Amino acid sequence: MMFKKVLIAGGGVLGSQIALQNAVHGKEVTVYDISDDAVAAAKKRVASFKDLLVADIKEISDEQAQADIAKITYTSDLASALKGIDLVIEAVPESLAIKKNFWNKASEAADEQTVFATNSSSLLPSKIAEFVDRPTKFIALHFANIVWSHNTAEIMAQPKTDADLPAQMETFAQEIGMVPILVKKEQPGYVLNTILMPFLSAGMHLWYHGIADPDKIDKTWMIATGSPYGPFGILDVVGLRTVGNILKTNQDAESQGIAEKLQKEFVDQGKLGTETGEGFYKYPNPSFQQADFLK
Amino acid sequence: MMFKKVLIAGGGVLGSQIALQNAVHGKEVTVYDISDDAVAAAKKRVASFKDLLVADIKEISDEQAQADIAKITYTSDLASALKGIDLVIEAVPESLAIKKNFWNKASEAADEQTVFATNSSSLLPSKIAEFVDRPTKFIALHFANIVWSHNTAEIMAQPKTDADLPAQMETFAQEIGMVPILVKKEQPGYVLNTILMPFLSAGMHLWYHGIADPDKIDKTWMIATGSPYGPFGILDVVGLRTVGNILKTNQDAESQGIAEKLQKEFVDQGKLGTETGEGFYKYPNPSFQQADFLK
Repeated sequence: MMFKKVLIAGGGVLGSQIALQNAVHGKEVTVYDISDDAVAAAKKRVASFKDLLVADIKEISDEQAQADIAKITYTSDLASALKGIDLVIEAVPESLAIKKNFWNKASEAADEQTVFATNSSSLLPSKIAEFVDRPTKFIALHFANIVWSHNTAEIMAQPKTDADLPAQMETFAQEIGMVPILVKKEQPGYVLNTILMPFLSAGMHLWYHGIADPDKIDKTWMIATGSPYGPFGILDVVGLRTVGNILKTNQDAESQGIAEKLQKEFVDQGKLGTETGEGFYKYPNPSFQQADFLK
Repeated sequence: MMFKKVLIAGGGVLGSQIALQNAVHGKEVTVYDISDDAVAAAKKRVASFKDLLVADIKEISDEQAQADIAKITYTSDLASALKGIDLVIEAVPESLAIKKNFWNKASEAADEQTVFATNSSSLLPSKIAEFVDRPTKFIALHFANIVWSHNTAEIMAQPKTDADLPAQMETFAQEIGMVPILVKKEQPGYVLNTILMPFLSAGMHLWYHGIADPDKIDKTWMIATGSPYGPFGILDVVGLRTVGNILKTNQDAESQGIAEKLQKEFVDQGKLGTETGEGFYKYPNPSFQQADFLK
């Protein structure tokens, strides 16, 4: 086993899920975050996600998961945390300055053989590779929210990555219960967002221009493809504030217009999607999950 | 009941399915096609689709369906077929010249109160409305292949359509077991193709540029959304020849390049998708429907 001792950098929503997923699959996990408060919050998050994981994954008992997470080490001391680590998975906030700061420090303190991986969603690994001392050992390993259910691990090298590393990461991903998705060239958005974004945009286009209602659009997709979600059901899961923020980074007028409409009609009313109980649908038991929706 | 006597014009793959769907839901159906040979072929098609429908739809017995389709009238005489008809659903080939020829003749021979609907996928109803004598009674009613399973009926008015007609068509669609999808403004591709096309294009983009393999792309989508199909599973159902033909009508270099690649690697080898038993996957029992695919 190449990667046994894993350091998760950043114990936020995704970092704590990644730590949990590693722990329940037998890895020796250390969680690093920038302060004792942040570390305490990360520890709480891991425990609460443990309950979700046990509810979702029948093969893992609560008892076993509790034992596994009890072994996780938490620290705000990066240099000592890095001693003996095989793999760092960085899940710090999605800002180039924060990534730079983290990777500069990690490069200084890490053992020579330690492999570096970033979970960055929106920054290409070739960009972040500039901040590390070992670009040949640097790769992107991208997790999706609710790591154990949406268990794709998108693996994307950058031009300087060692040729062997993608396959090694595929093996590691499988060891921790993930389905490895090899992205063979640098691609903004990896695989998932490359297909998800135009799909969601097309749905929002129809809604924004008053061509069809969200429930009709979802129905059409669900009937045609047998999917349990149409674009608006997915938008509610992604979160309408997040969707608006992504759209605002686009330059075109339609994206800006849709972002404004989402802000006014949803975000300003506290309707962020599933997390607040209302978005395009009301939760729990949204209409699209009811038996008569497809009639 | 506003529309009881229905004339289906064109007994091809979709026309014969539409005729069948109308017949098993209690409509008085006449199928018109251009020659006695075409009419005989249509009759055969309705009978073979009847077997599929009975296998798919538990509520409809073979006995009942047989009795229903025995009542269908077939003719190649348009003028006499149109007598007393409430609704014409035109499903003739997707060519402006053929549509024009049909609707000119139908306009001459139809009763004054007969409503006209086109099943056209790619031509906007405002364009076809120019060929009818009653644009206020003209609307698009769009069915998808395997009408009884993919039972959306997309309803799209054109600027001259009577304001009441869309709601009347919604009622009619429900009477024949369809889920009406109201498209409130003219939209090329209606709802389904407006979201399906960019989704499929994004998948093909990743494949064409060697960024990720089709099975990995499908896995990613299936895990993320719980859908039983990813883009390449859907492409095989649509048919790779059809997909290539659609792409060729686009002007951009990428569409042309993907169309060529599909032609060389699939169509020229007789791999058209599910209909020939091989496309991106092999059928029956494609790998993406096997239990270990998502591991």
